[in-house]
Amino acid sequence: MADTALDLALDGPALTAALVDFPSVSGTEEPLTDAIEEALRALPHLTVDRYGNNVVARTNLGRADRVVLAGHIDTVPIADNVPSRLDEDGVLWGCGTSDMKAGVAVQLRIAATVPEPNRDLTFVFYDNEEVAAHLNGLGHVAEAHPEWLAGDFAVLLEPSDGEVEGGCQGTLRMLLRTTGERAHSARSWMGSNAVHAAAPILARLAAYEPRLPVIDGLEYHEGLNAVGITGGVATNVIPDSCTVTVNFRYAPDRTMAEAESFVREYFADCGVAEFVVDDHTGGALPGLSHPAAVEFMKAVGGRARPKFGWTDVARFSALGVPAVNYGPGDALLAHKVDERVAVEKVTHCENRLRTWLTT
Amino acid sequence: MADTALDLALDGPALTAALVDFPSVSGTEEPLTDAIEEALRALPHLTVDRYGNNVVARTNLGRADRVVLAGHIDTVPIADNVPSRLDEDGVLWGCGTSDMKAGVAVQLRIAATVPEPNRDLTFVFYDNEEVAAHLNGLGHVAEAHPEWLAGDFAVLLEPSDGEVEGGCQGTLRMLLRTTGERAHSARSWMGSNAVHAAAPILARLAAYEPRLPVIDGLEYHEGLNAVGITGGVATNVIPDSCTVTVNFRYAPDRTMAEAESFVREYFADCGVAEFVVDDHTGGALPGLSHPAAVEFMKAVGGRARPKFGWTDVARFSALGVPAVNYGPGDALLAHKVDERVAVEKVTHCENRLRTWLTT
Repeated sequence: MADTALDLALDGPALTAALVDFPSVSGTEEPLTDAIEEALRALPHLTVDRYGNNVVARTNLGRADRVVLAGHIDTVPIADNVPSRLDEDGVLWGCGTSDMKAGVAVQLRIAATVPEPNRDLTFVFYDNEEVAAHLNGLGHVAEAHPEWLAGDFAVLLEPSDGEVEGGCQGTLRMLLRTTGERAHSARSWMGSNAVHAAAPILARLAAYEPRLPVIDGLEYHEGLNAVGITGGVATNVIPDSCTVTVNFRYAPDRTMAEAESFVREYFADCGVAEFVVDDHTGGALPGLSHPAAVEFMKAVGGRARPKFGWTDVARFSALGVPAVNYGPGDALLAHKVDERVAVEKVTHCENRLRTWLTT
Repeated sequence: MADTALDLALDGPALTAALVDFPSVSGTEEPLTDAIEEALRALPHLTVDRYGNNVVARTNLGRADRVVLAGHIDTVPIADNVPSRLDEDGVLWGCGTSDMKAGVAVQLRIAATVPEPNRDLTFVFYDNEEVAAHLNGLGHVAEAHPEWLAGDFAVLLEPSDGEVEGGCQGTLRMLLRTTGERAHSARSWMGSNAVHAAAPILARLAAYEPRLPVIDGLEYHEGLNAVGITGGVATNVIPDSCTVTVNFRYAPDRTMAEAESFVREYFADCGVAEFVVDDHTGGALPGLSHPAAVEFMKAVGGRARPKFGWTDVARFSALGVPAVNYGPGDALLAHKVDERVAVEKVTHCENRLRTWLTT
């Protein structure tokens, strides 16, 4: 039994405060995982599974569609901003309020208060989202028990300021290396300069025109940039190697293979001696044309906007589950000492999701 | 009195061997300096001065011209190649044979055997040439007692394989910095990429055509190269700064100010935000038109060749003394484990200099 029980009868804002006051910095999530598991096991309409410090709870009503509501339970390190504090303007302050214990509170409230949803529901609570990608609990569950994450549509309750952020762009990091021949710089004509050989690569980068494709009504914005360049042996030596680190952020209508081909072809005649894929994670389609998503957009209102940065929605996308971000927190306040959330947004988000899942 | 006396009655090759067997790695030259000073003070036709571990000896015959013969007495660290070994082909092996105890032996032999030269002579023996420039003994003497180095022409007995190397090129290292504005690479259009901004600099470098001016009959060869490039904050950040380290090697007909102006003007329209002079040492004119130099070339024979790398001749040039390298060692063998010198070259060099200074 968990040291501290979670009371799911609390309203959304009060449950958010209780979660903030239950520290769970990345790597120390076990007690909170225990408390969440215990609270969910007390709900007879859910079956509960656990893998590491990740909990997955499901309804099994035989509905036509299944929707996943997911959120990470860890926070960045506390910066003297716990316990939480509710001010007179209805703003709750504290580490993790926005990112994303308000979202986790909404998940728990829906789990507790919607025993007979119009679509089957899967609730996912996972650890280690704020640290290195290989530690990410959602990734571990996707690897070990992909069937636990199956569904027709997924909502991550990440802070999105109450607006829907659809899909996400992919990100490919590639090293473009040029080569030359070393020589003493006093006799430079005996060698061949690899930094000079990188001139066409930089010129091509500077000339790049981004593609802005519209997918499911969302306008994405690609980007191709050098995020680093390095070359040089010593101050009196002609460099025999230069490496430009290029980051291609691409819209989710490209596959990973297409993204790699694009970069290789874009720099095809720039004298690149070697292309090396340094890091690559694919994008995620917004999936807003699925009936469950159309109903979702109707219930939450507003217009979806594209997500440019890579997020965990891509992990669902990789499993064939379209996913969006939609949560009460404000992403601009995430990781800040003055992190906070307006409590009315927590209630608003909970109500909108309940409407979607019950009417 | 020195622990080990130097016998200047030995012939050139034997004196070279004695000097090699007297270790004097940079920073440990004091005992050898003591021995050289003692040996020179025993010669009544010379006045001897000492500053640190540097010795300067002069004739004072009231000749119309004064010639300086200079050499460093230190070596790179010994690599199990001392004591010296003379093989059956007349090759002397050991650390410092070529660079440049053979040259120092020639200096000492001329000092000992030419009491009435046709030009006044100044012999300079200095320390710490093989280490950081600010430790260089010739530089220290030039700073503290520039009058000790006065003369119409100077010969450094650095290894030049028995050929005359005239003057030397200057070397200017300049940092060319471009600037931009940071942004997350997922939203690169919010920033401005400083690495892309370096494209015109690299293009201009790649297009550089070297100038090959002829000075005193020697063809120099300028060079303009990136010896380094660096830019980048993190793999997901648009870089706000990029620095290209440019090395300009220039012929000695340019002043230092002209060299700096050339670089600034060459990159004038390349969007450089800042030019910083990182290091700069001027070149040295060969001075081969001076009568003493003309006689010198006649005596040593062959054709002079230009020196592309920077050498200590530039320290003489800065004092208004044209200077050349001319010594019995082979520069290609310098600093190598199998360093060696052919003893006939030591004798040849000594004889040629004696001819020049006595006929």
